[in-house]
Amino acid sequence: MFSRALLVTRRASNIGRTFSLSVMASTKVAVVLSGCGVYDGSEVHEASACLVHLSRAGTEISMFAPDVEQMHAIDHTKGEPMPANRNVLVESARIARGNIKALSEIKADDFDALVIPGGFGAAKNLCDWAVKNVDCTLNADVEKTIKQFHSMKKPIGLCCIAPVLAAKCIPGVELTVGKTEEEGGKWPYAGTAAALEKCGAKHVVTEVTEAHVDTANKVVTTAAFMHEGPFYLIHDGVGQMISKVLQLAKQSR
Amino acid sequence: MFSRALLVTRRASNIGRTFSLSVMASTKVAVVLSGCGVYDGSEVHEASACLVHLSRAGTEISMFAPDVEQMHAIDHTKGEPMPANRNVLVESARIARGNIKALSEIKADDFDALVIPGGFGAAKNLCDWAVKNVDCTLNADVEKTIKQFHSMKKPIGLCCIAPVLAAKCIPGVELTVGKTEEEGGKWPYAGTAAALEKCGAKHVVTEVTEAHVDTANKVVTTAAFMHEGPFYLIHDGVGQMISKVLQLAKQSR
Repeated sequence: MFSRALLVTRRASNIGRTFSLSVMASTKVAVVLSGCGVYDGSEVHEASACLVHLSRAGTEISMFAPDVEQMHAIDHTKGEPMPANRNVLVESARIARGNIKALSEIKADDFDALVIPGGFGAAKNLCDWAVKNVDCTLNADVEKTIKQFHSMKKPIGLCCIAPVLAAKCIPGVELTVGKTEEEGGKWPYAGTAAALEKCGAKHVVTEVTEAHVDTANKVVTTAAFMHEGPFYLIHDGVGQMISKVLQLAKQSR
Repeated sequence: MFSRALLVTRRASNIGRTFSLSVMASTKVAVVLSGCGVYDGSEVHEASACLVHLSRAGTEISMFAPDVEQMHAIDHTKGEPMPANRNVLVESARIARGNIKALSEIKADDFDALVIPGGFGAAKNLCDWAVKNVDCTLNADVEKTIKQFHSMKKPIGLCCIAPVLAAKCIPGVELTVGKTEEEGGKWPYAGTAAALEKCGAKHVVTEVTEAHVDTANKVVTTAAFMHEGPFYLIHDGVGQMISKVLQLAKQSR
């Protein structure tokens, strides 16, 4: 009986793998995940919003994640670490429905744009911002990927805390993480904007439903869950980011 | 340095817990999750779509999951079991951003509607359909919850494989899991419709972007990822389900 369940699972997994091949699309977008769950991985609603908006625009989506251990695994009911650790690629595959590759395999040549959702995973697994703040360093494959897309003038979309990755890689980049004042708990991470400026970035204040475009660097950012608010506002803000990334990708072709 | 990361995590978690209190809303909806990840938990994009559409409609959302071990944990890169097991409530909290309670604590009196997203977790952790198919039994709290909402004439929304839960609890219920033919891989689980009818349910064929309403039983279903297709179609189908659940809830008040 157990084997029956596994059969169903494996079959579903194989079908998942063929998904990107079946999409008739002209724009190819790489999405880089950092685990699965806001406190130690990719924020699942930001990641899902990216995929909903990218698929609605008819893009061909490929997902990647570093094949490394997470900084730690957080029990999301408690906000505290769990004893067992987890692998970033394996956990990211939960969002990707199994259709994901190691980030070391990415070839920027194959894509028109790069998108990185937020969640603490971006600040814990793609770099060590959560521990070292402005002195953080990036995972080598993450740094290489961002620098390649930037040097090839391909647009990069980032949301929530993921803009710190661009701040550390692209000198003087214009970014948003939303507001610079907490506004009674609506912007609990409002101090991030000043930290980004210490890295040499220029911060631009935005609402959660807006995305900022750095036209020169082709970097598009939106605050997402830097704002403490209802899911649909984050979904819509991510939609703005994806729309502007795809506009830039179209202009580049 | 490690403690700093934990501080950030705990703070975010606490903020998450206050979220539902801060929403000014008249309709209260309970969402029951079954883990986090399509092959052993809630399908994250279906769950996220439920939350996006419910929040856009201004509902007050409360999330629940059984505090039990998962049937197993699947490595989503391989579609095969991993050595370690996981807890359904703890993993569901990844989708809920920490804002979740044990299903044993739910009080149907407090809510206007019930929503259960799909994913194999619904067929592995909320019942044992994945192993026993039409002979499955439900988790006791899941069965009690569905029967309570049904007896109180409060609408119930289910998607993907979750309709099997209603088929086992509500005699003669009308349901959809999409199409009854595979159509070249577009409906890989097309055989599920016939299995639901063996349980005494009436299956109604629908497109992925449609939801079926059983008006007498106030049960709304949509196929979601029973259809192998782009993320936005599933998002839109779930939107139809939520819209019709909220219409029924409004009529009941």
